[in-house]
Amino acid sequence: MADDSHLIERRLASATLLQGDFLLAVRDTVALPSGAQATREYIVHPGAVMIIPMLDDGRLVMERQYRHPMGRVMVEFPAGKLDAEEDILACARRELLEETGYSATQWARAGVMHPVISYSTEFIEVWFARGLSAGTRQLDAEEFLDIFTATPQQVLDWCRDGTITDAKTLTGALWLQNVLNGSWTLEWQQLST
Amino acid sequence: MADDSHLIERRLASATLLQGDFLLAVRDTVALPSGAQATREYIVHPGAVMIIPMLDDGRLVMERQYRHPMGRVMVEFPAGKLDAEEDILACARRELLEETGYSATQWARAGVMHPVISYSTEFIEVWFARGLSAGTRQLDAEEFLDIFTATPQQVLDWCRDGTITDAKTLTGALWLQNVLNGSWTLEWQQLST
Repeated sequence: MADDSHLIERRLASATLLQGDFLLAVRDTVALPSGAQATREYIVHPGAVMIIPMLDDGRLVMERQYRHPMGRVMVEFPAGKLDAEEDILACARRELLEETGYSATQWARAGVMHPVISYSTEFIEVWFARGLSAGTRQLDAEEFLDIFTATPQQVLDWCRDGTITDAKTLTGALWLQNVLNGSWTLEWQQLST
Repeated sequence: MADDSHLIERRLASATLLQGDFLLAVRDTVALPSGAQATREYIVHPGAVMIIPMLDDGRLVMERQYRHPMGRVMVEFPAGKLDAEEDILACARRELLEETGYSATQWARAGVMHPVISYSTEFIEVWFARGLSAGTRQLDAEEFLDIFTATPQQVLDWCRDGTITDAKTLTGALWLQNVLNGSWTLEWQQLST
């Protein structure tokens, strides 16, 4: 293990900056490695899960959703935030069903990504799903999104040409490419239900 | 073009929620596609650039930096925020020099990613740099980070095994893999200086 003492900051104090309807922001005072003090402001986030849903014919279930901070419709893999105390696989199953209507019998955890390490605690777990069966989606009242399917090659082409710019979906494409070419392996779990 | 009128939200009002030392947060009131109203809270960000610096022997210049919201040291490609009115390539050259000490004679813009489309306007442009020459880095007083080099295969292995979880660096790895295997091409520009 590397000795990181010359890099590590130590929290001295913490204050809530903002408790919005959606955003929780805090400001910490930290001791820098030099001994000087600095402030660090960031969003506190419960974490999320993204699903890469693979149909039996190899196509992927994806979403088109308007994202207000971007001011446009984005192409994404399905994803959603963890509810309080929620198990991550339970969240993945719930979000896939709510947003797409699909249920999956097989699931595999790929890994975790951190979308914005400089100003949010958010993590997004990446899961693959297969053995999909279609049902009825259950969107929240404030949620509007389209579902469509795409081939892995289309997804990769869209990552190259700028159709896909969402970092979680780009990270999903990295996993997808390496799983499909056999470089990275997944451990699938079969659900009983 | 798809007709997205059933997805698009329209801003009705905007208010500043937080003007911190670092974070600027706003709350917009929007009209949903249904006609109902909702609030959207997000961080306003100036944008950033990430550099994938390739040494003549094929190794990559990377960083280890403590990230307070994560509570640990992260492995990343060099990156930094745009200054006001700053040209993106100028920012890339400045950040590479400040953080690593390297200058590059050849640059190629790969694309753009959006790290957190649900609650920040941030974009990160992805640039490759080659023709590197080492110099002296110029860290900010509050910046502490280690520079090291790694092979592309090491970077990809670290994306798989969880050593790298930073979404911008994972996105950089997607570009790196496809550029090196010849699937995606870059347009290099030679700098005169």
